[in-house]
Amino acid sequence: MLAAVARRRRLVVEDVPEPVLGPGDALVAVKACGICGSDLHALVHAESMRDVALNAGHTTSFDPAADFVMGHEFAVEVLELGPETRGAPVKPGDLVVSIPIALTSRGVEPIGYSNIYHGAYAERMRVTAAICIPVPNGLDARRAALTEPMAVGLHAVNKSAIRPDESALVLGCGPIGLAVVASLRMRGIAPIVAADFSPRRRALAAALGAHEVVDPAVEPAIEAWRRAGGSRPLVLYEAVGMPGMLDRAMRDAPPQARMLVVGVCMESDAVLPMVGVVKELSIQFAFGYDPIEFAATLGAIAEGRLDVAPLVTGVVGLPGVPDAFGALADPDDHVKILVEPGGPAAPAPLAL
Amino acid sequence: MLAAVARRRRLVVEDVPEPVLGPGDALVAVKACGICGSDLHALVHAESMRDVALNAGHTTSFDPAADFVMGHEFAVEVLELGPETRGAPVKPGDLVVSIPIALTSRGVEPIGYSNIYHGAYAERMRVTAAICIPVPNGLDARRAALTEPMAVGLHAVNKSAIRPDESALVLGCGPIGLAVVASLRMRGIAPIVAADFSPRRRALAAALGAHEVVDPAVEPAIEAWRRAGGSRPLVLYEAVGMPGMLDRAMRDAPPQARMLVVGVCMESDAVLPMVGVVKELSIQFAFGYDPIEFAATLGAIAEGRLDVAPLVTGVVGLPGVPDAFGALADPDDHVKILVEPGGPAAPAPLAL
Repeated sequence: MLAAVARRRRLVVEDVPEPVLGPGDALVAVKACGICGSDLHALVHAESMRDVALNAGHTTSFDPAADFVMGHEFAVEVLELGPETRGAPVKPGDLVVSIPIALTSRGVEPIGYSNIYHGAYAERMRVTAAICIPVPNGLDARRAALTEPMAVGLHAVNKSAIRPDESALVLGCGPIGLAVVASLRMRGIAPIVAADFSPRRRALAAALGAHEVVDPAVEPAIEAWRRAGGSRPLVLYEAVGMPGMLDRAMRDAPPQARMLVVGVCMESDAVLPMVGVVKELSIQFAFGYDPIEFAATLGAIAEGRLDVAPLVTGVVGLPGVPDAFGALADPDDHVKILVEPGGPAAPAPLAL
Repeated sequence: MLAAVARRRRLVVEDVPEPVLGPGDALVAVKACGICGSDLHALVHAESMRDVALNAGHTTSFDPAADFVMGHEFAVEVLELGPETRGAPVKPGDLVVSIPIALTSRGVEPIGYSNIYHGAYAERMRVTAAICIPVPNGLDARRAALTEPMAVGLHAVNKSAIRPDESALVLGCGPIGLAVVASLRMRGIAPIVAADFSPRRRALAAALGAHEVVDPAVEPAIEAWRRAGGSRPLVLYEAVGMPGMLDRAMRDAPPQARMLVVGVCMESDAVLPMVGVVKELSIQFAFGYDPIEFAATLGAIAEGRLDVAPLVTGVVGLPGVPDAFGALADPDDHVKILVEPGGPAAPAPLAL
């Protein structure tokens, strides 16, 4: 079967062996899988990502020097249940999503960042049947595939513990920043101010629920927030993940502000602790989501409470995945490209 | 009257005019005033401290290029009430403490970092009568003067929202770190692990309630915590305030740990945001205290619930203040030197 294989910092689309089902596995056909910014990063910096995970106490046997197949934002159709899957919540023919981990007797494998459980940039893959969730309400695979990144946004908003009387400033309108905007809107927060240099991404932020969007090249984001929501306590969401953002946010933040950092900055970043001290800022870092948040996100999308359609800007078949990685480098070109194994050979626009 | 005047980055002990009472002021005689690490810093870096305060939204007319008299950890005796002090909670003869601010019709003046309201490195000074608190229970001026730094520790512990089932690691056993240790002990937190390179400061941490002390040159502080309290969630207090501490603490902290930063690092500090993200750390910065915390601290000291005696290591008269600033540079020499206007001409050991 066809897969986009990460090999020595490059993507190679080629035939790979069919997955072999182990105990608890389900064989699934990939219907749609979003390309995540982390994958773009991992293609080049997988070693340092693994090192950070190890430092954080995660155990992993992942060897980025060996081949791996990424893709962890998937909606898939169950083809076949493997051994020891009695009582699984899904059956062949079901459209399902799952947290991208596989439960094995040796521990948890992160699907897509593993040499054992490959990800969804492939025609077929194996997942853990017991943790698959059937997609409800006739929701299509394209929207269901957005569950994973939207869950990251929901988790960030939960972790920030924002209250109904507070206002939000979201720095960065990539997929995660946009997911934060949508989750804030679902929670009824107002105003939500969103900042991005890209006109396209600002338009998407507005479509997903931002009350005010700002181009930081024209007006400092914090000034736009002051204009729009300055009378309410501020929770600032840093979703850019570039060096300098933390420092800028700390200098801009009003006293007693809370910051939620969900932007994944792999590089070192310099801050002035004294600025944090004098203003008594708090910085909460957020990562991933828990299973309940993941399931709640799927439910919110399926019930129409969380609108994900504006996020999707393109679709590509497996042979075009390397080109899609390139296209995502331009923030005005694409936000979220869905990989569909039988899709177009080159990234094509898609509006849901 | 005699005062230690900060003038162009040096301390000069000389005669200065007597304070002139304005509306709401009380004239007080200084009984004891602790030398704060911030004063050592302000003597050289007052401009940058003021700039940070301005950035944080504080308004100040403080001009560090002009003369000023520091000293904000004071216990004083009321000599005379000025105009418009009817209903003041204090009367001549009372030993009192006060938050080191003066309320004026032009706003709040920080006593000790002001060209208008000088601090307590002087024989006499003026304070706002309405916010003075009489020292209860016959508590002596030396212990009462510790109210201010201990309130900083209490506030840091409050701000960290540490719960009874959590454990604490305190990095740095200067006066603030020690105040944090004492407040944690008063709150019943166990274990409290405290780290400092100085044997003397480690001994003080133990005297103030640390269950375990560690020399980071011998064992990493986080390992000592793992040994002593690793089964309880960690709240880490950073009270060193040197570049590199935030980064070190973030790398050492276990996932989901909370960090409370009370160390005043004026310099830039580089961190790895990704480390915070993957572990979902939270960093709360703390500064100062509120009036209720200040009064509660005085009460706790006066009732013997908060033992401050071990903190005091020396006493000096006004002519010896410049030497005392020098002596405080060596962490094994002194922790807290009290200025008593009639005290010894050079810093002398003092054990309460």
